[in-house]
Amino acid sequence: MTTPLRVAIAGLGTVGAGVIRLIDANGELIARRAGRPIEVVAVSARDRAKDRGVDIGRFAWVDDPVGLGRHEGADVVVELIGGSDGPALALARTSVSAGKSFVTANKAMIAHHGLELARAAEDADVALKFEAAVAGGVPVIKGLREGAAANEIARVYGILTGTCNYILTRMQAEGATFQDVLADAQRLGYAESDPSLDVDGHDAAHKTGILASLAHGFWVNPRHIPTEGIRQVTPLDLKFAAQLGYSIRLLGIVKKEGRGPVQVSVYPALIPQGHVMASVSGVFNAVYVRGDVVGDTLYYGRGAGAEATASAVLGDLADAALDLKHDSTERVQAFVPHERNGALQPPGGASHSYYLRLDVVDRPGVLARIATLLARGRIGISSVIQPEGHEGASVPLILMIHHAPEAAMARAMQAIGRLAAVRSRPVMMRVEPLT
Amino acid sequence: MTTPLRVAIAGLGTVGAGVIRLIDANGELIARRAGRPIEVVAVSARDRAKDRGVDIGRFAWVDDPVGLGRHEGADVVVELIGGSDGPALALARTSVSAGKSFVTANKAMIAHHGLELARAAEDADVALKFEAAVAGGVPVIKGLREGAAANEIARVYGILTGTCNYILTRMQAEGATFQDVLADAQRLGYAESDPSLDVDGHDAAHKTGILASLAHGFWVNPRHIPTEGIRQVTPLDLKFAAQLGYSIRLLGIVKKEGRGPVQVSVYPALIPQGHVMASVSGVFNAVYVRGDVVGDTLYYGRGAGAEATASAVLGDLADAALDLKHDSTERVQAFVPHERNGALQPPGGASHSYYLRLDVVDRPGVLARIATLLARGRIGISSVIQPEGHEGASVPLILMIHHAPEAAMARAMQAIGRLAAVRSRPVMMRVEPLT
Repeated sequence: MTTPLRVAIAGLGTVGAGVIRLIDANGELIARRAGRPIEVVAVSARDRAKDRGVDIGRFAWVDDPVGLGRHEGADVVVELIGGSDGPALALARTSVSAGKSFVTANKAMIAHHGLELARAAEDADVALKFEAAVAGGVPVIKGLREGAAANEIARVYGILTGTCNYILTRMQAEGATFQDVLADAQRLGYAESDPSLDVDGHDAAHKTGILASLAHGFWVNPRHIPTEGIRQVTPLDLKFAAQLGYSIRLLGIVKKEGRGPVQVSVYPALIPQGHVMASVSGVFNAVYVRGDVVGDTLYYGRGAGAEATASAVLGDLADAALDLKHDSTERVQAFVPHERNGALQPPGGASHSYYLRLDVVDRPGVLARIATLLARGRIGISSVIQPEGHEGASVPLILMIHHAPEAAMARAMQAIGRLAAVRSRPVMMRVEPLT
Repeated sequence: MTTPLRVAIAGLGTVGAGVIRLIDANGELIARRAGRPIEVVAVSARDRAKDRGVDIGRFAWVDDPVGLGRHEGADVVVELIGGSDGPALALARTSVSAGKSFVTANKAMIAHHGLELARAAEDADVALKFEAAVAGGVPVIKGLREGAAANEIARVYGILTGTCNYILTRMQAEGATFQDVLADAQRLGYAESDPSLDVDGHDAAHKTGILASLAHGFWVNPRHIPTEGIRQVTPLDLKFAAQLGYSIRLLGIVKKEGRGPVQVSVYPALIPQGHVMASVSGVFNAVYVRGDVVGDTLYYGRGAGAEATASAVLGDLADAALDLKHDSTERVQAFVPHERNGALQPPGGASHSYYLRLDVVDRPGVLARIATLLARGRIGISSVIQPEGHEGASVPLILMIHHAPEAAMARAMQAIGRLAAVRSRPVMMRVEPLT
């Protein structure tokens, strides 16, 4: 065996402790596969005394996590602190400028600062790896960077938050409300006490931005990604969608038609029940990639959890072990800019089919008024469902809408929302045939 | 840009021509992502004059494909001739011993000679890559070698032949017979005129052997893999399976329980309809991998076809471009032996649940006789379906069988097959809960 790869780890939460446990348990296997042993030499965390189930007394302790970036004995720094800025970013900058390779699971930081860090890593001739930042157990970063190297990427569809997918799957199976399933997911530890990063789609937007950047070779700022979450989805929507042959999933979407701009967005969408993406249930993640040559490819696995994330970190460390001594022109770069005039689709510019659920007063003439407002925007209705068995002041009315531009649809929705016969805010979701 | 990677290609069928077309079309993209351009310098094929839709006049022509392995101008040789031995194997040996890296799509050759070639490549300090040999559009070789580096692999389930999956999917959708769909698949070019390599499972056995070898670190000879095809599957089986909540797929299976032997086999199996593997339809391939740390991961994509295979070859060439100048201790090896005492499960040693379809005379006492024979082998019946609406000399009888050893089951099947009341050979398929 050659000299070990010496690793410093900042952040010893469940993932950090998991990485140490994994090296302890599978060290020999990793060494054989990576060509050299991987050895932790130094760690940093908030609380030195905390019991993490692994012995950290054998590693050098560094109080200041940022100082770990200059630790003399380390070849690679692993950042598991989190947060898009602050100590995580300071550590990334310090490590790279000190000539150390850098491995991170931090999607927010990579989404916001990936371009700067990739350039710095290239200048410093070190590796920057972040497989664990997007869908930990799903090797999609590697797939996009290496496997699909010869492809123009026409589509990426990602189910990128296990929390949302768990909630939608259970709502569908049990007919339960968003609030009830969310509360249960929080009890089970599948959702944070403040769930908004997940359920409002921000976490998915970070990951979608990273995937879009790798697929299209220009960096996509997550702030420019139109993002919707799943709070407005009801059991009624899941039921009607199923009747129409669809499931509902929160999707991160990257689409490019020919030489046009790239549509990057996050929203809940109706997808065909028979499609493999509709069979992605519970906390699993999946990324569907269409290359112009390879065709459709799906990457599927556990998106989060200490073990899946630790496994992805180890995969990156194994790559770094192989990578480290190479001439920088002969190495997989963290990010290769290749689309010089890449442009994002402006919000509202895309066209879709839509599912529309209205809560209307059960009275003749209501549908006619709604249809008139849609027709004014040149929006065609493909089908109408007025389910039986609903009584009371208002009843649900489901409309499936032909292909229409988002902007026209938004205007029509505003006008419809102002009708006296429409009793609550209309719910609109896009239909993604995944073609 | 640094010096180009110079490539010699042996075999100019649809895949070889596809590789050239792909380099012509996406050359700039590949060069940016791989860090250096990829340039074809020499080719060899049976017929120099044949129109392949690409101009091959610009490359050096070598009459003897094996001679291509010594071509002075080439850094890498791509073998697309096919066949487990003969010129393909001679070319592999020649290329590697001449110090050239070697990329192949040849599953039969890798399955039979992978260990020898991997050792020769390691000794010669060159790369050996075969992503295109197993499920072309599915980056599972890379995933097993690199992404899952830190994992013990407990399970691999592969849908590895697009031909079989296409046939089973259409039989299920249309209620058509194996023969009818096969004939149609042959007309459409999805099946060979001699289909036995595909439909009898031999092709899947080659791929399963390669996956098992990479997962478990000892080379598995495809001759030692118990292999069954799909000829005996009828529309009736697909219908009853569906009623019981299952789909039928031809699976390549690699299972290991703790420190026990590794079960490697190929057979059609009943899998739960709700499982993501059951949603793999038509010509698509998929490989489900369970690591002890990362959990369940699925790789999915087009398994064959000129474009998907060419894309996988290009992915390997991009890797080789990065790989070539590296010290061999710092490179991803083609095969890393790591399980010193790896052993295969002897045939008949595994236990399963089973689906059993018998064609019986419709007469009292038949079920009792069958149940008695099963009970003698200590085999329990979990359910019996005697479908209505069948009239005539014989009727179908479906039995679902509790967990039982294969050997006991085989003995019982023989005894049952000898009963006068059983009119044709019993059909038995295993149930794979994919857990």
